[in-house]
This record gives sequence, structure tokens and C-alpha cells, in this order.
Amino acid sequence: MSIRIGIFGYGNLGRGVEAAIAQNPDMELVTVFTRRDPASLKLRTPGVVATAADKAAEMADQIDVMIICGGSATDLPVQTPALAATFNVVDSFDTHARIPEHFEKADAAARKGGKVAMISVGWDPGMFSLNRLLGEAILPDSKVYTFWGKGVSQGHSDAIRRVEGVADAKQYTIPVALALEAVRAGENPELTTRQKHLRECFVVPKAGADLARIEKEIKEMPNYFADYDTTVHFITAEELRRDHSGIPHGGFVIRSGRTGMDLEHNHIIEYSLKLDSNPEFTSSVLVAYARAAYRMNKDGVSGCKTVLDVPPAYLSPKTGAELRKELL
Amino acid sequence: MSIRIGIFGYGNLGRGVEAAIAQNPDMELVTVFTRRDPASLKLRTPGVVATAADKAAEMADQIDVMIICGGSATDLPVQTPALAATFNVVDSFDTHARIPEHFEKADAAARKGGKVAMISVGWDPGMFSLNRLLGEAILPDSKVYTFWGKGVSQGHSDAIRRVEGVADAKQYTIPVALALEAVRAGENPELTTRQKHLRECFVVPKAGADLARIEKEIKEMPNYFADYDTTVHFITAEELRRDHSGIPHGGFVIRSGRTGMDLEHNHIIEYSLKLDSNPEFTSSVLVAYARAAYRMNKDGVSGCKTVLDVPPAYLSPKTGAELRKELL
Repeated sequence: MSIRIGIFGYGNLGRGVEAAIAQNPDMELVTVFTRRDPASLKLRTPGVVATAADKAAEMADQIDVMIICGGSATDLPVQTPALAATFNVVDSFDTHARIPEHFEKADAAARKGGKVAMISVGWDPGMFSLNRLLGEAILPDSKVYTFWGKGVSQGHSDAIRRVEGVADAKQYTIPVALALEAVRAGENPELTTRQKHLRECFVVPKAGADLARIEKEIKEMPNYFADYDTTVHFITAEELRRDHSGIPHGGFVIRSGRTGMDLEHNHIIEYSLKLDSNPEFTSSVLVAYARAAYRMNKDGVSGCKTVLDVPPAYLSPKTGAELRKELL
Repeated sequence: MSIRIGIFGYGNLGRGVEAAIAQNPDMELVTVFTRRDPASLKLRTPGVVATAADKAAEMADQIDVMIICGGSATDLPVQTPALAATFNVVDSFDTHARIPEHFEKADAAARKGGKVAMISVGWDPGMFSLNRLLGEAILPDSKVYTFWGKGVSQGHSDAIRRVEGVADAKQYTIPVALALEAVRAGENPELTTRQKHLRECFVVPKAGADLARIEKEIKEMPNYFADYDTTVHFITAEELRRDHSGIPHGGFVIRSGRTGMDLEHNHIIEYSLKLDSNPEFTSSVLVAYARAAYRMNKDGVSGCKTVLDVPPAYLSPKTGAELRKELL
């Protein structure tokens, strides 16, 4: 019998989850819940139609896991605790500083309902967190470096779009090659914000806008750009559409540590991702952890969990014996 | 209270475990069990002395986890099942083809004793297995490539030493750079054995030996070298000692997969290790999983487990709340 999945929210992430379910034969999409008019949503899975978000509770016995695809700023802090009392849920809550608070709320709701709430799933937080933990547990005397990119930062692109005279924009976060090399060489450098990442901006100006002022405003914007070496390229709307319509991303978690009675040996552990589509990869992680949430709940587990709590074998449709034979 | 560790066997791996325990303040070395004369063993941990291997059972209540540091060929198939009935154990059994059989025997013994037997821990099997599994679970439509090296292969070095006229030798396994590049570029190449790895041999000949014959015999040796591009360098015993006394190793697990309704997006997940000391890194992994074995057993778990079964949080001395705050 398939694991029956509901998707809550149908933006980039929700559509990615739909595509990922189609790649996993042990899963089945039941419906997509939306706050829009359900009739207006054209799903891509044959035979499946959308449902109004406020009807979710009525479908509790038809859904094994709800994958919540809202945003971390305002959607998930409300949706995850609200849904976790009724459904096993998975979300991609990624506001690192607020994870402890989100965990507590999701945990209380999930325990009350006897369900599993799997939060902060994706690649960072998610796979990167897992690698930060594994490396630290193996090499206690070590330093970890996380680099992001090359990839599109939605937040920084939005910030540029708010500058007067900007029609549209896309911002790429790029790790500094020299910093990466120094870390990989085991030099354990102390790196400032500026030394770790570059910011490259592709900006479509409105007609007649003052380009020099736009560039200056972007480069001096506090938090977003002032602490970085930033490059601004002015391009046409057509060039933006043609060359920058994708949502690639990726990054590196590199741990550099020492072992031996005299700490005489160095070791480098590196985990990296190069993703053509950030939302589709995140969605694929969500779907694998939906499988784990379902199976852990079947085994009597309830409460809030993260990627750090999940036995890896639960992520795979294969049996323990198959995994030991094929992958161990 | 510390986790009390026994080490069973005191070769490279056992000494590495001793050094790793010194890096983990929540652990304490109780003793090293040896089949040699215990008085002949000089341990490096102040205040700790070796014990005869046949006295292990008498110390059952003084040891929380026994880390078994024997070889996979003949030691572990006997030692792990024998010790798992009495102790939580961790081993680094690495004969991939025989893991299912080793698992069954360790499982029966551990269940009988109500203990955890954690087998095949290290980096391959071990961290590499974990990454093979994670990648497959996230990207079902994907291909995985494992490359080893650059590093010393003990088995291949031994094989060279058995050639007539060879006094000593060291063999390095080296991934082929072009193959690595093609995999990283998402080309999903079909690679032959020869296309994946090179073998580089540093050979000390005996006086008067026929170098041409030695080189030919090495290069034509079935299984070990015949299917590879092999380079043979003749050097002096002093050069071998000076330039090739380390035991470095490492490698790469690269998964290349596709997502999207039309499988239109590519993703590359890469995990790599660059290790100055193969046995010390393996030992560090063993010690982290000893912590997990101890804690899982405390939580009522028994039987044989592998890295695929362990919730990652169990590997760290930190609490769940600390992990979520610092590493998630």
C-alpha cells in the first residue's frame, strides 16, 4: 500500500513535491490544499484535484503525511503547529534562529495528536546540518565551514527590487574560491563575511533611472550587501528572462580536523551540492523524510523530530537486508 | 559519568581508538585486551594497563562498549559474535560481500545478550554507505559513483611484497581525474575499472633482482593490477621510509540525479574525504558510534545495527536542544 501524501501550499516547493512524489512508486499524491480557489489550480498529476485549505481536517483519515510547503516567515510558524495535531507533517522551516521556538510548538501539537512533526527538512537546514553534526561527532578537534552558492538568493533579489528605479533583479551568492581552497588545504583560516562570499547582481533598470545611484544604493545596503564585495550588472528584461530564469543553488560543508595523540594528522571532510533547481531538490528531501515520518509514527514515535533524529534507513523504501547488501 | 570503553586488539586501529578516546571527554579507556603478553604492551593512556584477551568476560561489568579492532579476514568473523553476547560492541568489518552473513551472526549473539552490536563502522563501509543511501533516498532517479584514493591500499601493497625479488612496497590507489570530472559534470558516464582508478607502486627490489620481470609480474597480476593502468617505481628502502611511511587515504561518493516532471533538472551530491591517517579516521568513527551503541542500548535497543540504523543525534555528546541550536 502506498504512503498517501497531502501537499499544503502550491508554490515552487509544492510543485517540486508533486514532481518528487511521481518519482517514488511507494507514494501517492492524494490532493493539494490551497488557500486559493481550488478550481483555479491546474495540478500536473493525472486524476488529482486541489482542495480548499480549510477542508484539510476532514481528510485526516485519507492522508498519511502532510508536506507543508509554506514560507518560513509567516506561514510555517502557524501552519505546522496547527496541522501537526491531526497529521504527520514535514516542513522546511529555515529561519535558523527561530528553530528552537518552532520545535517546541510543533512538538506540543504532535505529541497531543500522537503524530510525528518533522521540521526544518531540506538542505540547509537539512543535509548540511546532518553533515555538520557527523563531522563534529567524528572529529571533536575540528572547525567547520559552510559556504553557499553559486546560487540565487531570493531574499537578496527581493531587496534589490525594492531599490527605486529597479524593474527586476536576480542576485547570485558566490563562494570565494581562495577561501574554499584555504579551507580545503586544512589551513583553518579565520574568515570575515567579505572573505567567504561574493554577491553578483543582475539588475533591470526602469527607463531613465539613474544607474550610478542604483549601484551605490545596492552596494551600501546594510546587512544585505555592505559587508560583501558586490558586483552590479545592468541588463535588459529580455536578458534577465533568457539568462537568469533558473533557481540554481548549492554549497559546501567542509570540516577540517585533527587526530592522533599529538594531533599530528589532518583530515578534511567535504560535502557539497550543485543543484539546478533549489526548490526541486529541497522537495525531494522533504519527500524522503515524509517516508521516514510515516514509518517512525507506525513504529510508535510521536513528537517533533529533525533530520538529526532520523535513522537513515527509514528514508529508503528498501528493506534493511537490501540496504546492507547493496549500499553498505 | 563517562562511557567506559574497552579496546580489543592493539594494532593501528586499536592505537587510533586510544587516541580518539583521549579527544572525547565523555569517554574513558578501561583497558586494552590483547592476545600478546599484556606486560609487553606499552599503552599511551596514563594509568591504563593491558589485559589478556581471555580475561575479557570477567570485566563485563566494567565496560560499557567494547571496540573490536581486529582484521576482517579472520578476526572479526569470530570475535564480534563471541563478544556481542556479553558486551555492546563496535567493529569495522569491511568485507562488503560478507556483511549479510556477519550481520546475522552478530545479531543472534547481541539479541541473546540484550546488547547492541554495531558492525561495519568506518568510512567505507560507514560514512560512504550513509552517503550512498541518503543520495539514493533523495534522488531516486540517479547514479552513484564511489572513487577511492589517493591512498595506500594495504592489500595491494601486500600483493606486491609477495612477488619474487621484492623487499618492500607501497601501493597507492588514485582516482582518474578525467573520470571524476565527467561524473561531477553530470555526464553519468559508464566507467570501466581501468577508467576509474590508477595504481601507482613504489617498490624496493632485493639486491640483484630482475626489475623488468618484477614490473611485468606486478602489472599482469590478475584481480590486483591486470585491469588497471599501473605504474611501477623502483626506489630504495630509505626512500620508501622517508617518502611513503604514512597511511593516507580518502575518496569520493558522487551521486548525480534528476528531478522535475520532465526530469529536466540535474543535481550533484558529493561527499569526499582526504585523510592523513586512514586508521585514525576510522578509529574516530568507531568511537562516535560506540557512543551511539551505548545510548541506544540504554534506550532498550538490542541486536545488530549498522550506520544506516543510527539516529545521527546519538553520535554527539550534545543534547538535542544544543544540536538544534548550534548545528541544525
